Amino acid sequence: MNLLKERILKDGTISNGNILRVDSFLNHQIDVKLLNEMGKELKRRFSNEKITKILTIEVSGIAIASIAAQYFDVPVVFAKKHQGINSDPDSYEATVFSYTKKQSYSIKVSKKYLSEDDSFLIIDDFLASGSAMTGLINIVEQSNAKIAGVGIAIEKSFQEGRQLLESRNIHLESLAVIRSIENGVVEFE
Amino acid sequence: MNLLKERILKDGTISNGNILRVDSFLNHQIDVKLLNEMGKELKRRFSNEKITKILTIEVSGIAIASIAAQYFDVPVVFAKKHQGINSDPDSYEATVFSYTKKQSYSIKVSKKYLSEDDSFLIIDDFLASGSAMTGLINIVEQSNAKIAGVGIAIEKSFQEGRQLLESRNIHLESLAVIRSIENGVVEFE
Repeated sequence: MNLLKERILKDGTISNGNILRVDSFLNHQIDVKLLNEMGKELKRRFSNEKITKILTIEVSGIAIASIAAQYFDVPVVFAKKHQGINSDPDSYEATVFSYTKKQSYSIKVSKKYLSEDDSFLIIDDFLASGSAMTGLINIVEQSNAKIAGVGIAIEKSFQEGRQLLESRNIHLESLAVIRSIENGVVEFE
Repeated sequence: MNLLKERILKDGTISNGNILRVDSFLNHQIDVKLLNEMGKELKRRFSNEKITKILTIEVSGIAIASIAAQYFDVPVVFAKKHQGINSDPDSYEATVFSYTKKQSYSIKVSKKYLSEDDSFLIIDDFLASGSAMTGLINIVEQSNAKIAGVGIAIEKSFQEGRQLLESRNIHLESLAVIRSIENGVVEFE
């Protein structure tokens, strides 16, 4: 999706040589117009799939998933990373390792919001190692719901996420696929 | 806003006698159609205000703010509760006390996304004690930006949040105002 790639080149910043930050339009400040175009494109790419709900994960997936959901006309469910005092003990749970923070955390979704009749599109901002995505897939599988596909804003194809999804025959669509980030330079596939 | 009030009565749940949970349509599963109606109503109520950006706070404010932003045609900025390893050291910061979790946390917004030329609509899901809202207002004031108003999904008028905003002459609009929650029964103003 050229609009997103151009925006990454224009406003993305690279820190520590190879960490891409998109805080100015996706992860801290949100360009809702761009997200609308991304939502339309995801709908176009998954137009042949039956989708009853969108699953994402807090925090950065929520805005993209909510805007995209308008084009699919379905509700959004987001996995929670921190179990609050009010959260539902009756949840599906998975463990995720964060390579950025070098620690594991658990993600949870209340059992009320996944049923075996559901067919989920999983949406997230980034796909890199695939660790968070594996956790989300694990949660959907626990509920016996179907996975109609995975829609990603920015994929880093030099990490293992794509292979993890392809080995499970999951329909993956990424709006911008980054082949390499070296010396502060982003190269797309 | 009757649509939201009816939904609270239909699908909200009360735990511990007086804690309202709206997980099935606002805070865990998100009814994007309802959020669209809420966004339209916020636009109607703030149609006379000049608004250049919407400010909210992770996690539950993000979906409402993003959907509403489409009607205001402005970007969204969300305050972060947990400083991640990649976050910007050059941020405005405020301390918030959570009555639910009985602890303080800091909220931060990168200085890049607030300027003295901005006029903010602050949007959040709940207004109760006003602690998080006071933190957001504090951050906007640090940047010398203006506060055009505060838009809330669900206000608990039996707590101090409203008074805090009225004492500062801030234009407050809440889509559902709850006067009391007693013995599991919600009463609106």
